[in-house]
Amino acid sequence: MYWKPEIEILPRAQLHTLQIQRLQESLARAAQSPYYGTLFRKQGIRPESIRTIDDVRRLPFTTKDDLRSNFPYGFLTVPKQGAVRLHCSSGTTGNPTVIFHDNHDLASWADLVARSLYCAGLRDTDVFQNICGYGLFTGGLGFQYGAERLGALVIPAAAGNTRRQIKLMQDFGTTAIHTIPSYLFRLHSAFVELGLDPQRDTSLRLFVIGAEPHTEAQRQRIEALFGVRAFNSYGLSEMNGPGVAFECEHQNGLHVWEDAFLTEIIDPDTLQPVPDGEEGELVFTTLDRHAMPLIRYRTRDLTRFIPGECPCGRTHRRLDRISGRTDDMFIIKGCNVFPMQIEKVLMRFAEVGTDYVIELETIDGNDEITVKIELQKAWFTGDIEALEKLSRRIANEVRDEILVTPGVRLVEPGSLPKSEGKAVRVIDCRKS
Amino acid sequence: MYWKPEIEILPRAQLHTLQIQRLQESLARAAQSPYYGTLFRKQGIRPESIRTIDDVRRLPFTTKDDLRSNFPYGFLTVPKQGAVRLHCSSGTTGNPTVIFHDNHDLASWADLVARSLYCAGLRDTDVFQNICGYGLFTGGLGFQYGAERLGALVIPAAAGNTRRQIKLMQDFGTTAIHTIPSYLFRLHSAFVELGLDPQRDTSLRLFVIGAEPHTEAQRQRIEALFGVRAFNSYGLSEMNGPGVAFECEHQNGLHVWEDAFLTEIIDPDTLQPVPDGEEGELVFTTLDRHAMPLIRYRTRDLTRFIPGECPCGRTHRRLDRISGRTDDMFIIKGCNVFPMQIEKVLMRFAEVGTDYVIELETIDGNDEITVKIELQKAWFTGDIEALEKLSRRIANEVRDEILVTPGVRLVEPGSLPKSEGKAVRVIDCRKS
Repeated sequence: MYWKPEIEILPRAQLHTLQIQRLQESLARAAQSPYYGTLFRKQGIRPESIRTIDDVRRLPFTTKDDLRSNFPYGFLTVPKQGAVRLHCSSGTTGNPTVIFHDNHDLASWADLVARSLYCAGLRDTDVFQNICGYGLFTGGLGFQYGAERLGALVIPAAAGNTRRQIKLMQDFGTTAIHTIPSYLFRLHSAFVELGLDPQRDTSLRLFVIGAEPHTEAQRQRIEALFGVRAFNSYGLSEMNGPGVAFECEHQNGLHVWEDAFLTEIIDPDTLQPVPDGEEGELVFTTLDRHAMPLIRYRTRDLTRFIPGECPCGRTHRRLDRISGRTDDMFIIKGCNVFPMQIEKVLMRFAEVGTDYVIELETIDGNDEITVKIELQKAWFTGDIEALEKLSRRIANEVRDEILVTPGVRLVEPGSLPKSEGKAVRVIDCRKS
Repeated sequence: MYWKPEIEILPRAQLHTLQIQRLQESLARAAQSPYYGTLFRKQGIRPESIRTIDDVRRLPFTTKDDLRSNFPYGFLTVPKQGAVRLHCSSGTTGNPTVIFHDNHDLASWADLVARSLYCAGLRDTDVFQNICGYGLFTGGLGFQYGAERLGALVIPAAAGNTRRQIKLMQDFGTTAIHTIPSYLFRLHSAFVELGLDPQRDTSLRLFVIGAEPHTEAQRQRIEALFGVRAFNSYGLSEMNGPGVAFECEHQNGLHVWEDAFLTEIIDPDTLQPVPDGEEGELVFTTLDRHAMPLIRYRTRDLTRFIPGECPCGRTHRRLDRISGRTDDMFIIKGCNVFPMQIEKVLMRFAEVGTDYVIELETIDGNDEITVKIELQKAWFTGDIEALEKLSRRIANEVRDEILVTPGVRLVEPGSLPKSEGKAVRVIDCRKS
């Protein structure tokens, strides 16, 4: 029933005791880092004085800006040689952000992902095809280590090459897939094109989907298309990556692993906790990370706790689907993108004028991004070949930056709609 | 001095004893697989009857064709659920080949890679940037697990995006890189374009290069360009991937880890051992792999044992650089390519005629592949746009197959030079 029953069904009173004990350890460790060391001294915070969950409110928040300002080593509790892995963002909107892991952290992360996958129904008898980017993106290595830890047979398929993905599924009898939800629509089209029926011609029985905003309706469409249940995964690179919160068989919200992540939901304006069950900004404190603990990290993600107990018996609370974000970041094909990243690339091109707009649409079930760009007057000529070349150069450089290839449409100076006040840079027409 | 001294400097007599003991275990395990079980019974081979290294000659060889014919589970000694990872080739030249690993195998592989990297001089104080494909390609996960095992700080940089690679090196003080040799030339050009000097503006001190044929002259050019020592790595996916043989500080051949791989060099025609120090085909028997042991696997790689002892004190013999292959496979940008793979893609296009040629060249220090293709007469029109579109479609499909984007040149029917007898499909003009 459970991967780690001694933790997953721990009565909440004991879970609180564990949290407090681990919180004190985390704070003591955090105090070893340059950033928190200075901050705690300045604010007179002593780890041992945090004795109840309510005491947590006396601790300072940490933001992405704090991570950026103290890049790269400000949050490290050990010399960098003590770490064995880093994952970082590309970071041309100011400094990148980076998370370091030591051996303990990698083992703890793999265990959380194993627990999450088990919670969604993966077993060591499954063949698990991990269709997502590897390398610095946390989904690849995160699910690889976790699914191996669980004991499933893992196919490190990585992203792309849909025909080969299907061949892998057929060759090895893949039963479970992790990928972004929009990819499953593309995958289904490819099955149809090849004259295959995934229900008849594969052994698929379980999908894990995440890293991309999607609605309950989309999930149900995926499940109907394939005849396979799809489970939501939630994570963010600042909290390792995948393995933060996961759905169980009841698909009624995502159990957040409260032994590893102290979880709050706050009003993003007053910074006070919202009443139970109401929506607010998700805030995490790591409880089991050694190299780089984070205290009250503001995720910018908006959600709520789902009240009540889950029939699965797990005592860890459930988060609702992420309903939005408090900043302008958007997620496309599993990549986090800030409009500023695209702007910085555009600004490298002398040919580009002052206005641009980023359009997000759902085309044939896939999320697509198009950047419409006003050219400088001198460059807006009838030379189609030159314009096409420029489009391609821009598309390539944007892709290098955001890891997704955008459509690029070069338009006449002054032709984009102007807005009063703050420019509208992102138009999100994706089907929700 | 050594990662695992009890193995690395083991006197050869004791190494032989260890090999025989492990060989018998490997054979007993192999006998559990459908393929070797049947073969051993047919040939009357009993593992316990193999008592000396010379007895090995009584064992049958295994070839890539055997792997293909018994795809996917013929060599597995356990139910597939006992494995936790597979790596496979794309395999449109007949069946793909696949290697399965259980937990023991992954730990053993990581340890061999850690030992190899340590042998080349990597230490747990290093920052190791792994610039190569992740996923099914064994270089990514192979070096990731191995370098983490060693305790270095690993940046899972993956391949591509050279500007970002340089930013990573600068942000985190990268001291060591693993990549294919041709990429280092591209990297150096990018440094120069950015007005940077790698010697002045980075902390680089060690390169590990492999997965692509290259000469001593190329290595020396790399070392001179960067002022960084470059160490050769040898591996192949059938023997896990990286971690089979590695250079030590003396750069005088690659120590092959004989506790894990029983190594022979044979005459590819007579199949008899060549005299010591003479060139022949490299043949390996796994001595420490549980899920899928391979007996006398013919690598098709040509090399020789370098006679004499190495001043480093390691007792494991040294292999010379791979001088060629006994088949028509070539390696480009770290990917193994059989001409037949490309041919099968071309044959999907009605527009394509009967003749084509694959040209390999070194352009600005990079290996490039171009496919020249004769069109069918009806399709060779003056419609440049249609031809360009076709070229792009072909290039994309070839890339999906071989993982490298080729140049495509469509030519007039009958315009390619014809050869007497066997068509010359590959023209390798790469600088050696």
